[in-house]
Order: sequence, then C-alpha cells, then structure tokens
Amino acid sequence: MAFNRVSVDRAIAWVDAATSRLPTEDTAVSAAYGRVLGADVRAPRPIPVYAVAALDGYAVRAEESVGAGAYNPLAVPLITVSAGDPIPEGTDAVAPIGQVEAEDGSILLSAPLAPGDNLSAAGSAAAAGALLAAAGTLLLPHHIGLFASAGLVELAVVRKPRARLAFAGSIPTDGDADGPMLRAALARDGATVAAASFADALAEPDADLVLVVGGTGPGPDDRSAAALAAAGELALHGVALRPGETAGFGRTAAGLPALLLPGAPADCLWAYELFAGRAVRRLAGREPALPYRRGRAALARKLVSVIGITEICPVRRLADREVEPLSSFAEIGLAAVAGTDGFVVVPEASEGWPRGAAVEVYWHPNR
Amino acid sequence: MAFNRVSVDRAIAWVDAATSRLPTEDTAVSAAYGRVLGADVRAPRPIPVYAVAALDGYAVRAEESVGAGAYNPLAVPLITVSAGDPIPEGTDAVAPIGQVEAEDGSILLSAPLAPGDNLSAAGSAAAAGALLAAAGTLLLPHHIGLFASAGLVELAVVRKPRARLAFAGSIPTDGDADGPMLRAALARDGATVAAASFADALAEPDADLVLVVGGTGPGPDDRSAAALAAAGELALHGVALRPGETAGFGRTAAGLPALLLPGAPADCLWAYELFAGRAVRRLAGREPALPYRRGRAALARKLVSVIGITEICPVRRLADREVEPLSSFAEIGLAAVAGTDGFVVVPEASEGWPRGAAVEVYWHPNR
Repeated sequence: MAFNRVSVDRAIAWVDAATSRLPTEDTAVSAAYGRVLGADVRAPRPIPVYAVAALDGYAVRAEESVGAGAYNPLAVPLITVSAGDPIPEGTDAVAPIGQVEAEDGSILLSAPLAPGDNLSAAGSAAAAGALLAAAGTLLLPHHIGLFASAGLVELAVVRKPRARLAFAGSIPTDGDADGPMLRAALARDGATVAAASFADALAEPDADLVLVVGGTGPGPDDRSAAALAAAGELALHGVALRPGETAGFGRTAAGLPALLLPGAPADCLWAYELFAGRAVRRLAGREPALPYRRGRAALARKLVSVIGITEICPVRRLADREVEPLSSFAEIGLAAVAGTDGFVVVPEASEGWPRGAAVEVYWHPNR
Repeated sequence: MAFNRVSVDRAIAWVDAATSRLPTEDTAVSAAYGRVLGADVRAPRPIPVYAVAALDGYAVRAEESVGAGAYNPLAVPLITVSAGDPIPEGTDAVAPIGQVEAEDGSILLSAPLAPGDNLSAAGSAAAAGALLAAAGTLLLPHHIGLFASAGLVELAVVRKPRARLAFAGSIPTDGDADGPMLRAALARDGATVAAASFADALAEPDADLVLVVGGTGPGPDDRSAAALAAAGELALHGVALRPGETAGFGRTAAGLPALLLPGAPADCLWAYELFAGRAVRRLAGREPALPYRRGRAALARKLVSVIGITEICPVRRLADREVEPLSSFAEIGLAAVAGTDGFVVVPEASEGWPRGAAVEVYWHPNR
C-alpha cells in the first residue's frame, strides 16, 4: 500500500464502513445530559400519574356545586391545592383561587363546576407507553427534566467511544499542539481518550478507535504507515485534502480502526474533523457530518482553489450573509484560523468561485 | 412587591442590569476548551519562530545551486527535512522530495533554487504580537491547537459562574425533575452548581447567582417571593410568559442576583432559559440570547396564542422549511417537548399566525 491520494469521498466511505454505533450502557437520568439515546424511551406510567390541579385553587367535589350561582353561593370545605398537586381523594374539580371567597375553613362557590374542571386527568399529557424520545436523540436539558418527571431513573445510552491516542512522529520543537487540540475535539464529539505508546496503540485491543499522530508523510523517516501495515492493515494512505493530505486509514493488530493523522497542526485538525471525528461521531451514535452549523453566504472576493484536491478555506464574516476568504492553511498553517468565523469546503472538482458567488459556509459555534 | 406580571422584555432588562461578565482567571491552554477568553490573545513570538521547511525535501544553500540545469546537475550535501522542521543552519531553501535524485550522502540538483524557496520564513504566518483571538471568543478545538502551537501555556479566561441552587417548594410526589434539568442547563451554559438550603441561599455570599426553585405562586402557601423580599429585595414577581409566569427576580441578603423559578417543570425550564440562563450566560461572557440556532420555517397549521403573554410553542419539523405546532406546555406541561425539534416564541402582542406563515424557529441542537 504505497502513498496514493484517494478522494475525500473514498476516505469517508472507508470510515463509514469501518465504524458503527457502539452498544448501549445504562446511566442515571441525572447523568445523561449530552449522551445519545440507545433505545426509544417510553413513558413508564401515565403522565400525570394521578389527576392533578391545573392551577392554584381549591379542590371540590363537583356535585356539591350543583345549583351554585351569584345569588345562591354554596359553602363547601376549604381544601387548598397548588398547580400540579394530586387532587385529594373525594374531589374531582378545582375552583380557581381568586374566583371564590374563602373563610373559616370553607369556600363560597358562586358558580357550578363540572367534574374535571381545572384539573389534568391521569394520562392526559402522555399515556403509559407513549414515546418520549427516540433512539439516537442527543439528550438536552429538557429531556432530562421530561424523563425525571416521567419517573424514569435509568436510561440506555450509547457507550462513549474510547479513543487511544499515540504519537508516531517527533514532538515539534515548539511543543505539542496536536494532543490538546485532539483531546478538545474528542471531548466535543463525545469520546473519552487514553494516551498510549505507538507500539501499544498498534497492539492493544482495549479501545474503540486508535488515533496515531505524526510520521504520516511519504518520506523515508515517516514510520506510521509502514508500522500500521506491518502490525495490521494499511487500507488507504493519502487523501486529496488540503490540509490533511497525508492521512492514513487501516486496522491495528487487534482489528481496531486506526487513523493516521498528520503531525502539522492544521493538517492534524482537518484530518481529524473530516475522518477521525466522523469515526468518533458514528461510534457515539451522533450526526456524523461536520459538527458545524451550515448556511449560505456570498464571497466578498474570489476564492481560488486547486482542482483535484478538496480544500478547507477559512473565512471571516463581513456582513450577515457575506464572507471574506482569508489566508489559506497551505500558506500559514493553523495561524489561518485566527480571526475566522468559519470555513468553506471547496470540492475536488472546483477551482474556486468568483467574487459574489453564493457558497456554503460552516460556521464556528459562538455559544 | 405584589405579584404583578411584567413583560418579558422588562424582566430581561432586569437580568441585564443585574449581571455582567465575571473577572478572569488563568487556566492552562490544554484545559481551556469551552471557556471564554477574558482578554485578547496575541502571538508571544513569531509564527513560525524559525524558518521551517514548507514541504518534505532536502535543505540546501541556494547559492550552491546557481547554474544547475537538466544538462548540468550539481551535487550538494544530502540534508533531509520534513515539512515543519526548522531549516538547518547554513541552508536557506528546500528542494522538494521527488524532484531531485539522492544518493550516497548527496543530492543532484537539476534546477537552481532561490533563497527562501519552499520554506516558511520566521513570522510569515503571524508576527509577534499579532492577534490570535479576541476577548469574548468561545474557545474551540482549533483555538487550543493554535495557542499551543504559538507557544502559549496559560490563558486568561472568564471565571465560571457559580450558581447556588435551592428549593423553596415541596419536592413533587413524582420526584425532583427540576434539579437534574437545571444542572444540565447550567453545565451547558458554563456554570458550576452547588446545592444549598433555601435559608443559606438567601444569606450566604459565596456564589455569583442564586436560583430558587418552587414556591413562586401568588398563593398563601408560596413562600419564595416573600422570603426573598424579607431577606433582601424582591424586584419583580410575575412575567407575562407561558410557561414561566410566576418567575421572580431580586437580590439576596448578600446582594447576589436571585431568580425564583416556578416548580412545575415546564415553567421551570422556560423561566431558566429566558432569564436565569441569560444571567448565567452574561456572567460567563457568553452570547446571552437563547442558546439555540434560529431559522425561518412555514407553519403547517395555524398557531394560536393568547394576546398579552409571550408564549413558548413547541414545534416538530415536517420538511426542510416547514414546522407543525404541537400540544402546548399549558395543556400538557413538559410532556410537550416529546417529539419536538424546536420551538417558536410568540411575542406578547401576537395572537399567533395563520397556516403558511413564516415564523422564526429555535432549533434544538442535534450534535
């Protein structure tokens, strides 16, 4: 398997074939924020379980209010209820606070009530067994509240992918930037990370994915591709992607999917985002596409790209729907992200676009 | 201060006047993912610090290549360099691998090189002092990589808001849903949380914000507003918001901003999202608006809302730009979030919109 650039689509197809959603594990509802549901969640009992007051007021037995009127107020026992309280035994309606007079342990009704007035019947919000959230849902704060209020205590969520992170190249003289950057991206994508030596990463079975950083070039000093080929399988080496051209793909001795990420930080970032991150997101049961919001904007200047290679181009927002291309990663490395608001992916077949063209922008999250 | 519904805008103005960005603290670059920059970050040294090879190849002294040609190959010493390596002393250009023949400790140049060919000069990506990211930036994985590769070790980030969470109401019979839901939302918005008794929450100074859940109604059994008024100040009680109508706003004995959140889970959620969450996001230096992506979509059915009250209406996505309103929170409480993809905020002055109207939808994140 010699260095031989394949298309980004071909590399993505390899990632997709090599990864699928991990099995589930049980977790407490209170700890499930940000996890992905591994199975449909259904109401274990009706919501509400009992009839509850729909508002603050007084619980009454409706039949005792028959005949009540402005000129014929009827006194019934004072039983205070707050919105959400179960209706006390023997009552079946709620008289709203403010619409009745209360004194000395009784209230005066000046209008009749029907059974069920101002209360929510058992099961009126959801029947037992109703679908509360489908498998694959990314759990947000409101899901936690919904599940807890439905009486659920544990949930089946997709297990977090365990990534093993190893370095095959030499650590750059200006310190390791790839490790902290990858750990942040892995956390964002829902994975846990363990460091490993290069040799252990190629041999040990105890992970879901192996990421090897550095030493991916085609030169004689680059050892990661040859070592992966010797230990397991090197399926692809080289992608028509800039930055990220020397990424590699294969399997370790233990059969784990392994991604070789270039050591230059900008190349490392984009090989992660497009390929390794996609593998993590697929294992985690998340949306596999790039985790950035997309939108269309017009180019304030022409954007030039090389035909035959997919290029990631940083852009800055000028106006609501206008962006300016900035210096490329090829020119200035990771410094190209300084001052950017997002990026454009210029496909292999395109040589860029003229000024004014509408392009799809991936926006960096700002919240 | 009696219960007296104010507009959502009035309540938001109170929150904005009561909160501002917290001071900064230093954190390691490697731990800064998800934090908000407290000050501009500038390059502490040029990027790159030294001239580095722009590609894999051989470092040469350009003047030794003068006169080289296809019919006059010149032999120079073999000095291998990888992309990103500092250029060895005494060399000033890089001959690309593949374009020269290498043998026995020397390479054969068949074309002349100019000084600087195929290398990135010191400071060519960013000069010392260049702005790498502005104060207020939410730090993403690429920032971590950029700062680490620029040689930064520590950063000034906005301190995380410390929220004190107390319950004034009785815990509902079906268990506490508000606590886990609020903890998830507080984590999302960048806060840390400590539980407290109601009395301690009103008295202790050691927090940035106090959230009191439950007991917010206007009824005689509801004690949170009266207790806040007695301990410190009750500035507002009641908002024209559904759900969330009984939210309250004030200051504790220690002068901390205090938000009273209704106990009913749907009311608690929305009083948090619009007001308490906004306070947290402002303290954290984040974008204060609702942390949901917005977009326009057409209503598949009419959406009815009460005039005089801002209403949060759950919606489901039917097609790319079409949404269907679902059962309201007023009807079925937090069960109204089941199966939703987002929500619409119907302003106070609106009674809703007809079928086909274009509305602004807040979409739930799915990644």
